Amino acid sequence: MKEVHYFYAPHGSNELPEDEAKHALRVLRLTDGSEMVVVDGEGLLHHAVVVTQGKKCFFEIRETLPQQPTWHGHLHLAVAPTKNIDRTEWLVEKATEIGFDSLTLLDCDFSERHHVNIERLGRILISAMKQSHKAFLPRLEGPVKLKDFLQRHMTAERFIAHCYNEPELTPEGRPFLFDALKDPQADAVVMIGPEGDFSANEVRQALQVGYRSVSLGESRLRTETAALAAVHIMNIHHRTTTCNF
Amino acid sequence: MKEVHYFYAPHGSNELPEDEAKHALRVLRLTDGSEMVVVDGEGLLHHAVVVTQGKKCFFEIRETLPQQPTWHGHLHLAVAPTKNIDRTEWLVEKATEIGFDSLTLLDCDFSERHHVNIERLGRILISAMKQSHKAFLPRLEGPVKLKDFLQRHMTAERFIAHCYNEPELTPEGRPFLFDALKDPQADAVVMIGPEGDFSANEVRQALQVGYRSVSLGESRLRTETAALAAVHIMNIHHRTTTCNF
Repeated sequence: MKEVHYFYAPHGSNELPEDEAKHALRVLRLTDGSEMVVVDGEGLLHHAVVVTQGKKCFFEIRETLPQQPTWHGHLHLAVAPTKNIDRTEWLVEKATEIGFDSLTLLDCDFSERHHVNIERLGRILISAMKQSHKAFLPRLEGPVKLKDFLQRHMTAERFIAHCYNEPELTPEGRPFLFDALKDPQADAVVMIGPEGDFSANEVRQALQVGYRSVSLGESRLRTETAALAAVHIMNIHHRTTTCNF
Repeated sequence: MKEVHYFYAPHGSNELPEDEAKHALRVLRLTDGSEMVVVDGEGLLHHAVVVTQGKKCFFEIRETLPQQPTWHGHLHLAVAPTKNIDRTEWLVEKATEIGFDSLTLLDCDFSERHHVNIERLGRILISAMKQSHKAFLPRLEGPVKLKDFLQRHMTAERFIAHCYNEPELTPEGRPFLFDALKDPQADAVVMIGPEGDFSANEVRQALQVGYRSVSLGESRLRTETAALAAVHIMNIHHRTTTCNF
């Protein structure tokens, strides 16, 4: 059974973006009438056929299948990008495969990286979305200063994962994220710090605006591993089904 | 606070292996009397000091702290190595950070890779163990033919993750691994197939010897992502504590 290729085109468009078109026509050698799947990143999956116009690749929709996320609520990861950007790039790929809604890159007191190539990360998000056959494209932003992120109004259950044990920074202890998550339908935000962790002052500020201290388990995890673990824990806790059929 | 460096020396030895010694003396420039932590891969963590002898690095133990795993039971992952070995290498690093006990590389009907550099993977295991401050080194073996692996006598809860929906291959459906795991203290084994999945015949053989079909969630995951998800799910389900203090 030949697999139909997945492509991304922004919601409402009937033309593939330039790099997608190049991949379709030059790499995969699709021609007029070739079958394709186009996802719009906002939940719509179209079965379509190719309509070329020179180097441009339009598509004619045959059938549209609205998709549902396989988890409840809006799952938001906020993480300081790693010094070695490769590690952040694989996090972006893996988190998208697992499934979540938003990624905010944070600029923290101990951040070792203050700039990222956001376009490149965006391309990795798109390719991971297509590769894992999803129709939802996670939102991506940043780097955002932590204090600005903390000032945002959010109704979500909010958590900050850190390694401090001081009572002042862990008024309710530091429960395991999976146990700290309450409503499996609620929105959730988890913040992960840089290699050097958040500063005590940053944790203090987060607690003041309603974040809760959590742990991601007993293991000492690298930043990107901790971030993927957080996404996976939110995804498991908020999953919509427990059986594939 | 300066961090004391972690090194690995096999259980019972008072000398660092050659590559560890090279790292200690040439890279970190440790000298006689330098403090170090040595883990033996079998649960012992030694606070020790360096004793050099030419290019050799011995250590004198000051204090030994037996460690306990942070999960119950023996967690065993069996996975077909990926065509692109880099993906298997990061799996080895991440799974070790998260925490598990055994990794068997499988040779399956649809495997795209039949040979691996097991020494190289072993070095990655050791460095991930040290990096995550663990004293337990996961066992590593393979590639092992699937039919030989299936013939092993195991008392563990055994699972095979695959994408088939045929009733014959899913007599109990295909529950989510987290829900299929019963006793949080029991040993567990999860098998993950190659990029092309297990063959129907392989799934049949596994079911015949007592494996149960499971899913790793609704998402379509790459082999290495599925394998890490399986390790993380076992680790969460079998965790010994739910709070870091």
